[in-house]
Amino acid sequence: MAEKVVIKEVAARDGLQAQPKHLTVEQRIALLGALVETGVSELEIGSFVSPKAVPQMAGTDEIAANLPPAQLAYSALVPNMKGYELAVRAGIRSHAIALAATEEMNQNNIRKGLEDTFTMGEEILDRAAAEGVDIHAYLAVAFECPYEGAVEESLVLEQVDRLMQHQPARLMIADTIGAANPAAVHSMMRKLVDRYGSERLGCHFHDTRAMGLANVYAALQAGVRQFDASAGGLGGCPFAPGAKGNVATEDVVMLCESIGYDTGLNMPKLLEAVALLSDMIGAPQGGRAHTWLSKQCA
Amino acid sequence: MAEKVVIKEVAARDGLQAQPKHLTVEQRIALLGALVETGVSELEIGSFVSPKAVPQMAGTDEIAANLPPAQLAYSALVPNMKGYELAVRAGIRSHAIALAATEEMNQNNIRKGLEDTFTMGEEILDRAAAEGVDIHAYLAVAFECPYEGAVEESLVLEQVDRLMQHQPARLMIADTIGAANPAAVHSMMRKLVDRYGSERLGCHFHDTRAMGLANVYAALQAGVRQFDASAGGLGGCPFAPGAKGNVATEDVVMLCESIGYDTGLNMPKLLEAVALLSDMIGAPQGGRAHTWLSKQCA
Repeated sequence: MAEKVVIKEVAARDGLQAQPKHLTVEQRIALLGALVETGVSELEIGSFVSPKAVPQMAGTDEIAANLPPAQLAYSALVPNMKGYELAVRAGIRSHAIALAATEEMNQNNIRKGLEDTFTMGEEILDRAAAEGVDIHAYLAVAFECPYEGAVEESLVLEQVDRLMQHQPARLMIADTIGAANPAAVHSMMRKLVDRYGSERLGCHFHDTRAMGLANVYAALQAGVRQFDASAGGLGGCPFAPGAKGNVATEDVVMLCESIGYDTGLNMPKLLEAVALLSDMIGAPQGGRAHTWLSKQCA
Repeated sequence: MAEKVVIKEVAARDGLQAQPKHLTVEQRIALLGALVETGVSELEIGSFVSPKAVPQMAGTDEIAANLPPAQLAYSALVPNMKGYELAVRAGIRSHAIALAATEEMNQNNIRKGLEDTFTMGEEILDRAAAEGVDIHAYLAVAFECPYEGAVEESLVLEQVDRLMQHQPARLMIADTIGAANPAAVHSMMRKLVDRYGSERLGCHFHDTRAMGLANVYAALQAGVRQFDASAGGLGGCPFAPGAKGNVATEDVVMLCESIGYDTGLNMPKLLEAVALLSDMIGAPQGGRAHTWLSKQCA
């Protein structure tokens, strides 16, 4: 039996939230249906944020009420306690919260300082633990911050130690701007896996510099078995042609399966979901290996 | 002092030989001039093959006679003893020879069986050793063959052992069709580095499946310090849009420098060479990280 690698599909949240083209609720439900068909075991459906701040995610409650019945974990991003409550009310029992590793990123992203952000995160984690809700806590800009530059590994390790005391179901190390390199990934993840084991850790990579797969490989070598990925590599800045967003699900599946891990995903179905996404967005989507994978599945 | 990684720039040979657009000798000399400016320490100038078989490489002797004076190792591919003699006559003292790891690939590529190919290679190696000429011996399709499928690691290790008895200046493990995965690369290169050390080994990757950088990283982890790369990722099939050829020099430089190795290459100069190449070929060239690197160097 091949060892499992768990992929959380984030195209419908982290992917869509960055697009100038806003999909309708019906389109997003259809997309989620196509993503369910890929066999993925975790699927992020949207976020419970203010529709003024992120109009792309408006109506996530309606989406939550109309999810295809499936044997997988649906989750949503919640920005704060209000979002947590909305998500629980909508029936979602697995949430993502994001805390940035640097003061400036928190200020710029959610207009809160680092200490306030962490306090809020800890309150959500404590309440979720009491209420039996799973939280994936994301430590954003864990390698490099667009405002403060390189982030010290020791700082991130301390922040993880702090958050782990509040029992997140999973702690995700996020390379939010795609600036990580595989040596830094291996170094950090090896230390964290030694401390906390593989079960409670994961990585979220962006592919801005085309080092996404090298980083996934380095994390696998360090013992990480849980990754976020986005069908078609959707995400990132749509105004920079050729710039890639999240590491593409199909690329991660290809890498993992090629070295003997079982992701449980069906590649032809995944490419169908990418094609649907391309139609909806009105621009061709696809990971770095799109041409090769398309030929294999033709 | 950062540890060195040596890159051999192969765009002017492995890159150009696959293009439907044939550059003139003058253009190829101008391209080599631009590549010299990048600071690369090894530069492949062409090949001494029959111009009927590979018209893109016609006039490599003329190019050899008009190389910019520079502190670097110029080299050429030679397909056989006649090519060896032509290259030596043209003043080139560092040659590449290619031997495929499988019977079918040798038959299809040079219409010789594996045993005949190896015998010929050994004759060239022995003569070169006697004449003080450096040979880089390439073991092609060392991970997967387009005709025979997966290639056994044990077979490749035996072939390397055999070739090493004939003292190549370097033995290059080549993933000719871009089918390698980082776990296989690490496994094979670790064994070879243990046996022969880093100095006499290198890797040649293609980026067909977007795993080129993951493979470079895996090879670095295994102790490999010498890599082929092609400016702009030139190479491979020009008729498959989005399909990539050789792993791009700029991607390899970015990866290596990001994890602390010194390649000696100048990124803005490298992007200038890629721009020149794009002009000459009449189609935009560029590695996987082209957008991001271009922004950094703007």
